Amino acid sequence: MKKIINDAADIEREMVEGFILAENKRLQKLGNQNIVVRRQLNPNKVALVSGGGSGHEPAHIGYVGFGMLDCAIAGPIFTSPPPLTIYKAIEAVKTDKGVLCIVKNYTGDVMSFEMAIDMARGAGIEADYVVVDDDVAVQSGEIGRRGVAGTIFVHKIAGAMAETGADLLSVKEIAKKTIANVRSMGMAISPCTIPASGIPSFELSEEEMEIGIGIHGEPGVRREKLTNADGIVKKMLDKILTYLDYAGREVVVMINGMGGTPMMELCIVNKFVKGYLYRNGVEVYDTMLGNFMTSIEMAGFSLTLLRLDDELKSYYNATADTFALKK
Amino acid sequence: MKKIINDAADIEREMVEGFILAENKRLQKLGNQNIVVRRQLNPNKVALVSGGGSGHEPAHIGYVGFGMLDCAIAGPIFTSPPPLTIYKAIEAVKTDKGVLCIVKNYTGDVMSFEMAIDMARGAGIEADYVVVDDDVAVQSGEIGRRGVAGTIFVHKIAGAMAETGADLLSVKEIAKKTIANVRSMGMAISPCTIPASGIPSFELSEEEMEIGIGIHGEPGVRREKLTNADGIVKKMLDKILTYLDYAGREVVVMINGMGGTPMMELCIVNKFVKGYLYRNGVEVYDTMLGNFMTSIEMAGFSLTLLRLDDELKSYYNATADTFALKK
Repeated sequence: MKKIINDAADIEREMVEGFILAENKRLQKLGNQNIVVRRQLNPNKVALVSGGGSGHEPAHIGYVGFGMLDCAIAGPIFTSPPPLTIYKAIEAVKTDKGVLCIVKNYTGDVMSFEMAIDMARGAGIEADYVVVDDDVAVQSGEIGRRGVAGTIFVHKIAGAMAETGADLLSVKEIAKKTIANVRSMGMAISPCTIPASGIPSFELSEEEMEIGIGIHGEPGVRREKLTNADGIVKKMLDKILTYLDYAGREVVVMINGMGGTPMMELCIVNKFVKGYLYRNGVEVYDTMLGNFMTSIEMAGFSLTLLRLDDELKSYYNATADTFALKK
Repeated sequence: MKKIINDAADIEREMVEGFILAENKRLQKLGNQNIVVRRQLNPNKVALVSGGGSGHEPAHIGYVGFGMLDCAIAGPIFTSPPPLTIYKAIEAVKTDKGVLCIVKNYTGDVMSFEMAIDMARGAGIEADYVVVDDDVAVQSGEIGRRGVAGTIFVHKIAGAMAETGADLLSVKEIAKKTIANVRSMGMAISPCTIPASGIPSFELSEEEMEIGIGIHGEPGVRREKLTNADGIVKKMLDKILTYLDYAGREVVVMINGMGGTPMMELCIVNKFVKGYLYRNGVEVYDTMLGNFMTSIEMAGFSLTLLRLDDELKSYYNATADTFALKK
């Protein structure tokens, strides 16, 4: 394992501290917790909280700020933060309008957030949550689809509506509407290594790729021979397009790097996307290209399509001022 | 070599096309050239042109836009574009106020830009250039220091002054002042592979790092045992601090990922920086953290310190609206 770190046991804390030192005009750390909070909280809006395991940076700490989250929890790498930590985050940003948590669909995350919300309600805080499940690669029985990069759109759109002073029910509804309109799929050509274990999450030969990769270093749904970029993108879009009826609609496309992917490759991926979607009757309204939801240093990318209507478009276009997303 | 590409011979073109498809509201490609130009050119300002070999994305195409460049040339990977291509870029954005080229200090780049400027002058265009040489790692005889991530500050500050309608001489002077106040140093723990060759630029054992790495996959000045992040940062800052008198001054720090470095590690690097600079009498005014000037998928980082005065600070803070830098 080769990493630029100090002690593997201190990674999450040092990461949050280093991040805050770069963003300390707008953000602060909550006490000795690995929780990032806006310096200026607005008591007249629904507070938005997200987070989960670390290793997905800039998610979620990079999306705290005006127009998106009020607070993000950076749990242990690829591990849900404990309920008490999440409760402390909720407690720190609570307002009379309530708190909405945006949770990615993993058993641990959902369980921890549910328990934290129970604790918050017990303390008289109006708290609720939504679960994001945009990853079409895996559909496993009761657990359902995983939550991946589409979560950023939920931060963006629910965050924009929350800034208008909308009530908790309305913000929850727009978050659910975003979730209903967003689908993703990922792939990787090289794995990531969790520092605590020091072992790569999977092994691939020089000729192989993992299609349908998760964001926790879990192997994909299929191991295949590495083909050219256009072929990979076509295969992923074909799968995404079967999950929602995108025809005749406008979409925002996110080309998301997994952490170790050069921007050159993300651009090459995007070259094929717009034309292929057009030939399938889908119009690209906007494209986001970069590292938005990563898996430490994994090399690969995910594609996310957000299907728009006028309401989603207007919140997508609203002002956001965060480290990782400015509008 | 594992890369998400189509044909290695088409990488630069496909990259520029994919980038333009993502940014086509504001940017366009110049004919069949790998040149990115603002859609809306302002005839009442000095035009700024930069570029060089590809492989450093988002540099330089990601800095075309309001407050920074008017145009960037994406040459072959790690290879200077030919003079005629640079001339076409100059010709495309020329104004009555003149054109300033921002060139990184490599023999090929300097030669190509000088020839292009001669051609431009021959065609009656008022054109000039500055050479950025911020890398303290190498100081080789007549050639001098290399130009690396500090170049982004020259784009930012000269770009901000150019938007005010200042004349060519003034914009050149502020660019030179920025160059005189910026120093950088880099390191890597893994190499990059130029697609055309398919061979990694250097090889390191699991225990080694390259200190003083360049941005073209050239080996560093010293191969050493990989130590912890704080130790590496201290060593690099100590070297940078001997090159300029930073004591008692404010600086902007850039923590720049080399393309394959996870954001987690850039944050950990930054954790040590502010305190160490403070103990050396240097105050951090602002911190930029991310991938600004990369070497394809190389894993590593560079540190850049820009020494501020009131004039540089005001142009640093001025509005910029580009893909890779928004202010």
